Amino acid sequence: MDRRSFNRRMLAGGAAATVGVTSLSAMASDSAADAPRAVDPPKTAPAGGEVRRIKMYAEKLPDGQLGYGLEKGKATIPGPLLELNEGDTLHVEFENTTDVDVSLHVHGVDYEISNDGTRHTKSHVAPGAKRTYTWRTHAPGRRKDGTWRPGTAGYWHYHDHVVGTDHGTVGVRKGLYGAVIVRRKGDLLPDQTCVVVFNDMMINNKPAHSGPNFEATVGDRVEFVSITHGEYYHTFHIHGHRWADNRTGLLTGPDDPSQILDDKITGPGDSFGFQVIAGEGVGAGAWMYHCHVQSHSDMGMVGLFLVKKPDGTIPDYEPHHPHAGAEKKSGGGGAGEGKSNGPESGGGKSGADKSGGGGADHAHH
Amino acid sequence: MDRRSFNRRMLAGGAAATVGVTSLSAMASDSAADAPRAVDPPKTAPAGGEVRRIKMYAEKLPDGQLGYGLEKGKATIPGPLLELNEGDTLHVEFENTTDVDVSLHVHGVDYEISNDGTRHTKSHVAPGAKRTYTWRTHAPGRRKDGTWRPGTAGYWHYHDHVVGTDHGTVGVRKGLYGAVIVRRKGDLLPDQTCVVVFNDMMINNKPAHSGPNFEATVGDRVEFVSITHGEYYHTFHIHGHRWADNRTGLLTGPDDPSQILDDKITGPGDSFGFQVIAGEGVGAGAWMYHCHVQSHSDMGMVGLFLVKKPDGTIPDYEPHHPHAGAEKKSGGGGAGEGKSNGPESGGGKSGADKSGGGGADHAHH
Amino acid sequence: MDRRSFNRRMLAGGAAATVGVTSLSAMASDSAADAPRAVDPPKTAPAGGEVRRIKMYAEKLPDGQLGYGLEKGKATIPGPLLELNEGDTLHVEFENTTDVDVSLHVHGVDYEISNDGTRHTKSHVAPGAKRTYTWRTHAPGRRKDGTWRPGTAGYWHYHDHVVGTDHGTVGVRKGLYGAVIVRRKGDLLPDQTCVVVFNDMMINNKPAHSGPNFEATVGDRVEFVSITHGEYYHTFHIHGHRWADNRTGLLTGPDDPSQILDDKITGPGDSFGFQVIAGEGVGAGAWMYHCHVQSHSDMGMVGLFLVKKPDGTIPDYEPHHPHAGAEKKSGGGGAGEGKSNGPESGGGKSGADKSGGGGADHAHH
Repeated sequence: MDRRSFNRRMLAGGAAATVGVTSLSAMASDSAADAPRAVDPPKTAPAGGEVRRIKMYAEKLPDGQLGYGLEKGKATIPGPLLELNEGDTLHVEFENTTDVDVSLHVHGVDYEISNDGTRHTKSHVAPGAKRTYTWRTHAPGRRKDGTWRPGTAGYWHYHDHVVGTDHGTVGVRKGLYGAVIVRRKGDLLPDQTCVVVFNDMMINNKPAHSGPNFEATVGDRVEFVSITHGEYYHTFHIHGHRWADNRTGLLTGPDDPSQILDDKITGPGDSFGFQVIAGEGVGAGAWMYHCHVQSHSDMGMVGLFLVKKPDGTIPDYEPHHPHAGAEKKSGGGGAGEGKSNGPESGGGKSGADKSGGGGADHAHH
Repeated sequence: MDRRSFNRRMLAGGAAATVGVTSLSAMASDSAADAPRAVDPPKTAPAGGEVRRIKMYAEKLPDGQLGYGLEKGKATIPGPLLELNEGDTLHVEFENTTDVDVSLHVHGVDYEISNDGTRHTKSHVAPGAKRTYTWRTHAPGRRKDGTWRPGTAGYWHYHDHVVGTDHGTVGVRKGLYGAVIVRRKGDLLPDQTCVVVFNDMMINNKPAHSGPNFEATVGDRVEFVSITHGEYYHTFHIHGHRWADNRTGLLTGPDDPSQILDDKITGPGDSFGFQVIAGEGVGAGAWMYHCHVQSHSDMGMVGLFLVKKPDGTIPDYEPHHPHAGAEKKSGGGGAGEGKSNGPESGGGKSGADKSGGGGADHAHH
Repeated sequence: MDRRSFNRRMLAGGAAATVGVTSLSAMASDSAADAPRAVDPPKTAPAGGEVRRIKMYAEKLPDGQLGYGLEKGKATIPGPLLELNEGDTLHVEFENTTDVDVSLHVHGVDYEISNDGTRHTKSHVAPGAKRTYTWRTHAPGRRKDGTWRPGTAGYWHYHDHVVGTDHGTVGVRKGLYGAVIVRRKGDLLPDQTCVVVFNDMMINNKPAHSGPNFEATVGDRVEFVSITHGEYYHTFHIHGHRWADNRTGLLTGPDDPSQILDDKITGPGDSFGFQVIAGEGVGAGAWMYHCHVQSHSDMGMVGLFLVKKPDGTIPDYEPHHPHAGAEKKSGGGGAGEGKSNGPESGGGKSGADKSGGGGADHAHH
C-alpha cells in the first residue's frame, strides 16, 4: 500500500475505501514515484472484472444523525466512498443496527429489482437484520443488434430509500448517503477525492459556516464529486478552477465540444464529478467553493479548497478569518482537523504522488 | 400496418400518432420480424420531406381540465404525441371547441411568426374558430458561408400560450400540452414511447400517487420523453435504467463524451428524451420513476416502469402494494388499465417487435 | 474602425467594449464587406496573447442601483461586456466610487488568489480606493504529463462579492454584474451580442414588462449570453431559435452529439451563450424570449428579439401592443430606444455585415 492509498484509507477514518484489491495493486505498481513528476503520466484505472465483498452498517450517530460505515461504530456522513472499475461486481453485506427500517438504494449501477432498496420491492432491511445487496457494472460495448451500449462509469451515489417516507426523506436528511465512483479502464486516477453533498441547506450535514474544507498542494490531481439531496436546487461553484460538463469532467481532447463550467445547477438525486489540477494557472490559495444561490451561501453553504504551496503555506489566507460571517469561523484551522470526517482528509500526501503538475504546455500559443 | 404501429395508434386511444405515412411504410418493410431478434438491426427513421396534415382540437374535458386531441371528443392529457422526420412539414388544422381563446405554441421546429401561438402576434384562436398552424423541420447541413446549421431533430413539445395569462399559465396547468419528436434519418425507432410531463406537482395531470405506469417486456426498446411545465423545478429519476445527456439520449459510440445519467434537473419548458432497453442488465421488475425532490416524490410524483418477463410476470411485484403511502395504491393493477390515457399503453406488443434484445456483448470484458 | 464595431462601441453607450486592439484589427481587415454576403465566410476570433489594460468604476446610479462602467459616470447594468481571446491578459484598474466596500470577482478566467474579489482574501476595494485586478486566459493544450488541459474560452461573467454580505448579495441585486466572453482562435464572431441576466425576478435589473428588447435584421449572426443571479432558478427560452448545449452553442459538425435546445434551466452563477442567425428558417418577427417558469413570465420576465426584414419592417408586430399585460407595453417602440442600456443596441448595422445568411443548404435532403 503506497502512501497515497494509506492516506486515503486511514486518515479518512474509513470513509474512503477502494473496495477490493485491483486498484490498490495498480497503485503499488507505480514504482517510478520519484521520477521527475512533471512528465509522469498519470495513473489510470485498470480493467475491472473483480468480485468484491464489503460489509456496510447503517448506524445511529451520537448526535442523532444516521450514517453508513464499513465497520461497526465507524459510520460517517457522507458514508464511505466506494470505487469500482467497470466490470466489477460488489456484494454489500448490509447490517441495519438502527431501530428503524433502512435500505441501500444505488444510482447508476446494475442490480436486479430485489436489490432496489425500496419498500414496494421489499428490499429494505428491518432493525437488527442483515442482507446482501449486489451491484454489477459493465464496460461499454456493442449489442448483438449493432447498437452501442453505454458503460457504467460515472459519478454515482447511494442513499436510503425508506426511513421516514417511502423515498427515504428522513434517512437522507439525517445523513444516509454516500458516493460511488465507477471508473473505466484508462480513466485518470486522482490523488484525492473530495465528496461534496448539498443536502437541504447543509454540506455533508455539517453545521452552517463550518466547511467542510479540503486541502491539497499545488499540482495535485484532485477529484470532486458533487451530489445533491433533499428539497432544494443548488448551484455548485468553485473559485479558480473549472471542469468539463461531460462524463469525466475532463475533456477527451481538442474535439470535445463540452462546455467548461465553474458553476452548475443541480437538484436532488443529481451527481457529477470532475478532476482539477490544484492551483493550475492560479497558484495556491484559499479557494472558496459554495452554492451560488445567494441566500444559501449567505446561510453558510460554503467551504474552502485550501491549495498549499509546496512549503505548506497559503497566500492571503488567515485560517481564523471569519470569511463567512462574524459568528463562525470559516476554515477551522487548516490541516489535520476533522480527519474523521472522511472528505476533509487529503493532507500529508507525498509530493511524489502528484500526477498532474502545475506547468502546462499550451499548444496554441 | 404492423402490430406495433397498430398498438401505438389504437391502444393509445389516439394519443400517439405517427403523422403521415413515411414511417409507417418503413415499419411495414420490416418483413423479417420473425428472424432471431437478437441480431435484428433496429428500425431507423427514414428521410423526411413529406407534407403532412392533421386536425387538432382543443377541448374541455368532462372533469374541467383541457386537452388537445386529433379527433373531436378524444382529447387527452398529454395531447397526441406527434412524430416527424427532419424535412417534414406539418399543417395542423386547429379548432378551438372551448369557450376561451386557445393557442398552439411549439418548441424546436421552424414556423413563421404568424404561427407563434401568442397573443402579441395575434396567432391564437378564438372560441369556436379554426386556423392552420404550419410547422417545418429541416435536416442539418452547411450554410452557404460554410458554417454548420443544426437540424430540427429533438424531443420537443407544444402547449397553449394564451389561456389565463399571456403565457398560457392556466391552459398549461389544465392540460394543454403534448410531445413532439423530430427524428433524423437513421435515428433508432423505439417499440414504445412514454411521455412523462412533470406539471406542477402532477405527472400528466393525474392525481398524486396514481402513476402513470408504463409496461414493457424485457428487451423492448422503450423511449421516454420528459417534459416539464408549471412553476417548479424537478429532477427526473428512473431506477435501474440510464441515458446519455445528449440529443438522442443514446451514445453515438465510444468517443461520445456525454455524461450518463439516471437523474436530471429540469425546469418549465425543458424537454429531453432517451431510449432504454427495458430491463437490460437488470431484468424484469417494477422500476420506479419519480421526481427526486423529496417532498415531490413523497406527495406522489411517482410512477412505475413495469418491465415484465417474457412470460408476463414481474418479480417482487405485488400490483396492489401501496408503495407510495397507505392511502393510495401505486400501480393500479398492471396491464390494460388506462389505455385511453395515451402514454400508459404499450402492453400486448408482439415479441417479434422487440428490436433491442436483453443480451449484450460487452466489448471490454 | 468598421461600422459594426462603431455600432457596438458607440451606440451601446460604452457598455460593449472590445478590450484591446486585436479583434478590432481583425474586423478592419474585413475589406470584402460588399462582396455577395451569402458566401462570405464569417469572421473569426484571432489568436490571443495581448496584454490589455482597462479602467473600471463601481458607481452608484441615480436611481440607487449600482453599476460597473468603463468611464466615470457611465456605469450600466449589466456592466460592460468584456471580450478576450485565449492567451490575453487583462489588467482592470478598478476604482470604487461608492460609499461601501465593492469588489470584482470573475468566473472562468485565471487569476491569483489576490485577485479573487472576496473579503476573506482581502481582495475587495474600500470606498474611494483603487486596485488592479489581473485576469489571464490560456488556450487549450497538452500538459507535460500528456493529459489535456481545457482552454479558457467560454461565456463567463463578473460580479461583486462583498456588498451587503460576503457573497455580494446586495451588490449583485443592485446591478454589479456583467458578461465576459473569452474566444478561441477560430471561434465565429457575431454581428451583435445580447446579454440577458436573469437577476431575481428582473432581466438586467429593468422593471417588469419592460424588456430589454434586442433588434436585428434577418441574417444577422446574433450572440446571446445568458447569466443568472440571485435567489431563484429560471429557464431561458427563446421563440423560433435554438442552440447547441455545448461550449459555443454551435455544433462543431455532424458528429457533435450535443442536444439542441430552446429552453434551459439555470441557477445563480450559471452562464452560457450561443449564436443564432436571426430569423433563419423562420423569418422576421417579434420573437419572445422569456423565463419559462409560469409565474416569472407572467410577472414580466419577458423581452423581444425583434428581427426585422431588410426593409426594416416586422410582420405581425405592433410595437405598442401590450403583449405582456395591459398595464405595460412590451416593446417600447422599436429601434433606437434605450441605447444607453448596453445590450439593447445593435440596430443600424450595415447589411454588408451579415455573415450568416438566411438560406441554408440542407445536406440530407
